[in-house]
Amino acid sequence: MLHERYYIEKDRQEKLMSRKNEPADFYNGVYTRYKYPVLTRQHIPLTWKYDLDIKSNPNFQERLGINAVLNSGAIKLNGKYYLVARIEGNDRKSFFGVAESDNGIDNFRFWDYPILLDDTCKEETNVYDMRLTQHEDGWIYGVFCSESHDDSTNDLSAAVAAAGIVRTKDLKKWERLPNLVTKRSPQQRNVVLHPEFVDGKYAFYTRPMDSFIDTGSGGGIGFGLCDDIEHAVIDEEKILSRRRYHQITEAKNGECVVPIKTDKGWLHIAHGVRNTAAGLRYVLYAYATDLNDPGKVIAEPGGLLLGPLGWERVGDVSNVVFSNGAIVEENGDILLYYAGSDTRVYVAKTSIELLSDYIFGTPEDPGRSVLCVQQRCELIKKNLEVLKNEI
Amino acid sequence: MLHERYYIEKDRQEKLMSRKNEPADFYNGVYTRYKYPVLTRQHIPLTWKYDLDIKSNPNFQERLGINAVLNSGAIKLNGKYYLVARIEGNDRKSFFGVAESDNGIDNFRFWDYPILLDDTCKEETNVYDMRLTQHEDGWIYGVFCSESHDDSTNDLSAAVAAAGIVRTKDLKKWERLPNLVTKRSPQQRNVVLHPEFVDGKYAFYTRPMDSFIDTGSGGGIGFGLCDDIEHAVIDEEKILSRRRYHQITEAKNGECVVPIKTDKGWLHIAHGVRNTAAGLRYVLYAYATDLNDPGKVIAEPGGLLLGPLGWERVGDVSNVVFSNGAIVEENGDILLYYAGSDTRVYVAKTSIELLSDYIFGTPEDPGRSVLCVQQRCELIKKNLEVLKNEI
Repeated sequence: MLHERYYIEKDRQEKLMSRKNEPADFYNGVYTRYKYPVLTRQHIPLTWKYDLDIKSNPNFQERLGINAVLNSGAIKLNGKYYLVARIEGNDRKSFFGVAESDNGIDNFRFWDYPILLDDTCKEETNVYDMRLTQHEDGWIYGVFCSESHDDSTNDLSAAVAAAGIVRTKDLKKWERLPNLVTKRSPQQRNVVLHPEFVDGKYAFYTRPMDSFIDTGSGGGIGFGLCDDIEHAVIDEEKILSRRRYHQITEAKNGECVVPIKTDKGWLHIAHGVRNTAAGLRYVLYAYATDLNDPGKVIAEPGGLLLGPLGWERVGDVSNVVFSNGAIVEENGDILLYYAGSDTRVYVAKTSIELLSDYIFGTPEDPGRSVLCVQQRCELIKKNLEVLKNEI
Repeated sequence: MLHERYYIEKDRQEKLMSRKNEPADFYNGVYTRYKYPVLTRQHIPLTWKYDLDIKSNPNFQERLGINAVLNSGAIKLNGKYYLVARIEGNDRKSFFGVAESDNGIDNFRFWDYPILLDDTCKEETNVYDMRLTQHEDGWIYGVFCSESHDDSTNDLSAAVAAAGIVRTKDLKKWERLPNLVTKRSPQQRNVVLHPEFVDGKYAFYTRPMDSFIDTGSGGGIGFGLCDDIEHAVIDEEKILSRRRYHQITEAKNGECVVPIKTDKGWLHIAHGVRNTAAGLRYVLYAYATDLNDPGKVIAEPGGLLLGPLGWERVGDVSNVVFSNGAIVEENGDILLYYAGSDTRVYVAKTSIELLSDYIFGTPEDPGRSVLCVQQRCELIKKNLEVLKNEI
């Protein structure tokens, strides 16, 4: 016999999960936002939280609560859409779980078990934010953040971060490889594996440490090559997308989504951070790199691609949108998964055509207010001519 | 031929802009809040964001998106209500635009073009937060924040701020004057020009640097005089409204609105900031200065006049209300424009009578919890007597 509350909660969850998603009331010509989050903590199976044995849990209490479901890697395999979500327990530790959907827009359901990685890294306290790369070597790689306490200090909050690497063929059996070593950067977060070999090597998007690069440059997203993915070591990291004063990347930036291959080049979606009186603000931005040299930027549209809006603005870490993954369909549609305020996962739909149009058709940030107004006045002047000719 | 989406977006915008505003469900006897924001990013003309040429923008994408419309200077001219809003592009740079309304409460519409200031200050990266002063010298002055990168440091985010000064007669043609120089304060934000001469000089409300005033005083809103507005230099800044421990000005404060002249003195609306675990919290407060000496405080009601409420609390910089301007009607009504969380502009209506009553009728902050309870108990005791005598 199960507790009567089980059926109530099960029914409520089923209603939530089977709800059809629909486009939100938002237009910018670049992407369609969807109204409902695709993953929330309410999507977590009841079996992960409750002890269903009425004898040991007569009050039907949560025994292992879940706090949030956020930054998800994304991949399409055999016609199904998979998110490898970051799931944060009530105890603040994150782990990964696979959720599956038939359309990528709604009806995501977690598999029976979360992912249990091999415990190869004994000092590791937390793992999060896996990017999934379907590599041309035949493996699906998951690159994530592996965080440990910094024992060199008395600061209880000090952490050191590295890029953990796992690989799989089916999202079920995962093989853990040694963490990435970047010789000139003692720490790494937001590392993404490029899906193709570059000069016969594995290529990573990284985030070099400020102090290890040219003074005053401010750092940014780096690009580095390594010979052996099973013992991945990167020597040189070249800066790709820079942090810049009074632009959306001022405080920091990092690669988000595995680059998308197109005829015109690789399309990138990254995050930019600025400081505010209410803490950091995270937005997504886009850029493109050369098809034959993914480490060479060929287009940098000014400003943000997607910023937090409405209820997305509020959560455990408010004023944040963040992405770990997108799925590219055969017809060119792109499903971009992004977390709202580190609390729930949303989806926006665009396409290679629309995103390319945005990246190559949006002017660059001219860097100063007066130049931005000039840029805008030219657009307005052109538009007023267009409108005059319409009449 | 225009893109079909143009008509959909145009229609949607027209509905938003022509929506009648109405009083919100809020009462405190001091002011009436209005339900809908008077300016949002949805109020920005489509011509400022989209390229309307269907050939160069076949997908009807935003080419120069707008992120927020916030802190607005305000003025009434020839029966029309004007806001000179701070508009922030998706690229994070702010600039100014004039929006016009017949009643000051709704139906604000931006003019065809934003304000393109003369590029007289080549290192200036950003401008924002213009206060409009109708000065007795015949000019309308705009005093705003002019921000540049601090090149003396390697910190990419370090900025230096000065008070920029422009003047106009019609809000169309703007003449830029040299930035204000305050000899004892290397930086300035939140500077407001007083509307009358004081001792034959131009008078500014400033914010002196902590390190340049009496040790331990904590600074606050300053008051200084200058001879020549075309080369404005202030030597001494006298502290007017102080920062105080555990009051609403603890972290910082600054003048907001051009002081309002009344028989009883000058009415001031300023902002006070305190720190919280979720970042800074900005509220508005009020005080009065002597009619003949606007640098001398004569009334300091305790606490906040207006704090963020409901959806005002949420935005790019949450938990902030901020004002740059108010309009005083001939009948004594006051329209106070304030931004919610650096994202949209709201209006509240009060009057010289109501605001004076608030400023002169609200007790001062006694500074300690036990004294505040005593103060409140005396009020309650009096009220219980009043109620008893009513029955």
